[in-house]
Amino acid sequence: MDQNVGIGIDLGGTFIKYALGSREGKILKENKIPTDSQATNSKILGQMAEAAHEMAAFARLKGYIPLVVGIGTPGCVDVERGFLKGSTPNFRFWSEVHIGKEIEKSLNIPTFIDNDANLMALAEARYGAGVGHKNIICLTIGTGIGGGIIVNGEIYRGSHFAGAELGHMSIKYNGLNCRCGGRGCLERYTSAKAMTDYFIKKSTKEGSPITNKNISVKDIFEQFRNGNRLALETIERSTYYLGRGIANFMNIFDPSLIIIGGGVSESGDEYLKRVKKVAFRYAMKNATDNVKIVKAKLGNKAGYMGALSFAFDQLMRNYKS
Amino acid sequence: MDQNVGIGIDLGGTFIKYALGSREGKILKENKIPTDSQATNSKILGQMAEAAHEMAAFARLKGYIPLVVGIGTPGCVDVERGFLKGSTPNFRFWSEVHIGKEIEKSLNIPTFIDNDANLMALAEARYGAGVGHKNIICLTIGTGIGGGIIVNGEIYRGSHFAGAELGHMSIKYNGLNCRCGGRGCLERYTSAKAMTDYFIKKSTKEGSPITNKNISVKDIFEQFRNGNRLALETIERSTYYLGRGIANFMNIFDPSLIIIGGGVSESGDEYLKRVKKVAFRYAMKNATDNVKIVKAKLGNKAGYMGALSFAFDQLMRNYKS
Repeated sequence: MDQNVGIGIDLGGTFIKYALGSREGKILKENKIPTDSQATNSKILGQMAEAAHEMAAFARLKGYIPLVVGIGTPGCVDVERGFLKGSTPNFRFWSEVHIGKEIEKSLNIPTFIDNDANLMALAEARYGAGVGHKNIICLTIGTGIGGGIIVNGEIYRGSHFAGAELGHMSIKYNGLNCRCGGRGCLERYTSAKAMTDYFIKKSTKEGSPITNKNISVKDIFEQFRNGNRLALETIERSTYYLGRGIANFMNIFDPSLIIIGGGVSESGDEYLKRVKKVAFRYAMKNATDNVKIVKAKLGNKAGYMGALSFAFDQLMRNYKS
Repeated sequence: MDQNVGIGIDLGGTFIKYALGSREGKILKENKIPTDSQATNSKILGQMAEAAHEMAAFARLKGYIPLVVGIGTPGCVDVERGFLKGSTPNFRFWSEVHIGKEIEKSLNIPTFIDNDANLMALAEARYGAGVGHKNIICLTIGTGIGGGIIVNGEIYRGSHFAGAELGHMSIKYNGLNCRCGGRGCLERYTSAKAMTDYFIKKSTKEGSPITNKNISVKDIFEQFRNGNRLALETIERSTYYLGRGIANFMNIFDPSLIIIGGGVSESGDEYLKRVKKVAFRYAMKNATDNVKIVKAKLGNKAGYMGALSFAFDQLMRNYKS
């Protein structure tokens, strides 16, 4: 490894995770600080700048040169301008922020930003489950569903940086209303929140209300293993819809790999097994040959690793042009 | 224009359309012969070879050099091997055919083949409604729905040439069974056949059966203009579903342009107006800026023009490598 390193930052709803690493994806140091979703934009920018300063100082102390900062954030990001265009439901104010410019000003290091789900997909493609694959669909299942599309090894962003909203493909045109303004979106049936909401609602309806409002998908899987019928029903429903959604993505993209990340994918083999069965049942025959549906490999590190990798790419591109 | 020309062939369910033209899309001569969907593979290959010979002879007579043949066919095509992998419902036997090799053998001119919907999308992107756009979604609405995806100006085919089956995105997970093995596919609600089937069924149900079983979408639009309530209902239903499907494609691809081709799109402004209204209502806000939904421009010529353009590309690529 040469002396040149980068700083990757992943802004999440609960933590800002960040790391110092090489272009090849070797991580030298990592850390995280809690996020305040109610904070003002300048407070969040301040936190991110502080995180970057911490890593830059450590790098210099050890004789490395911090060349670039990469940042992943939820929301619709204008990558060329380093500008967060769209808002995101997990933060109160976080919208229309010149993240790139602000962090660059504070650190005097070139800074590049992109959507967090895009960067997770890139990290998995380059260092994780997707190594060796050119066309990949990546779904990160959390409170919402983050989508990433890798075409020919690169992030596909669309014409206005608004693409890859894979959780907002409607699979039930007359289904549940969605926060995006649509109806019957995949996210409304398959996100972690959709699963817990359904389980709580059903349990209440059937006379055994859930007292723990912070119940997680992990808890639902535990109850399922203990023979709880509603837990089984919740898992069946969610994996069925996800399988149908993935069948659509197979017909549309014919990828060689589909990666499922986020906490839900860690809930046990039962989850992925059910999703696969439905997806392969409903996708067109030609699109089911040599396709794999797998769990993400990088876990929480995918965000900052993708940010690092992307930032180096942008830096190199700017040198060339 | 220089002396080098190519031959483009578009195999359709009713006609084989073919032309002689330049790399820049200038057409020198065109012709068509009826297709026999019940014919053996060798008969169809023979027809295509004859068509190509006709154009090659004309070219030589006029002092041009026929450099390459491009062919568009329905079905799943292995572009690298010039091989038709998958079957297609419009032909009885047309499957697993080495089209490229066979035509090349007959003419002694390099021959390249691709899926017809892909080539129509390419033609519109280069010479038609899509000029100036990099990311385009193209839907050709006929008996079925042909899908084409243009990413960065090039055809996106997926990892096994099975991508862009846009008509087989399910928009109603528990909807009508589809010939593809899926359920609730967009095609089942929005193809020309879906429209006429629905109109005939509804009319019969309401006591005014349609005697003309060859009724077309054009007829339905005529009846709509004459105030027929069921014709209105049929058009409302089909345009609503298509709008919802396009909203999905906007959220997934964030294209700058969506092109709708095929006979249905020619049925009148009313059609496109209704589709647009629904698509823009249901797509996410960030994906609706600077997007246009337009009619295809090249009509019946798109198939062979795309075949020509693609064939020249492949030829140039082979020279380079």
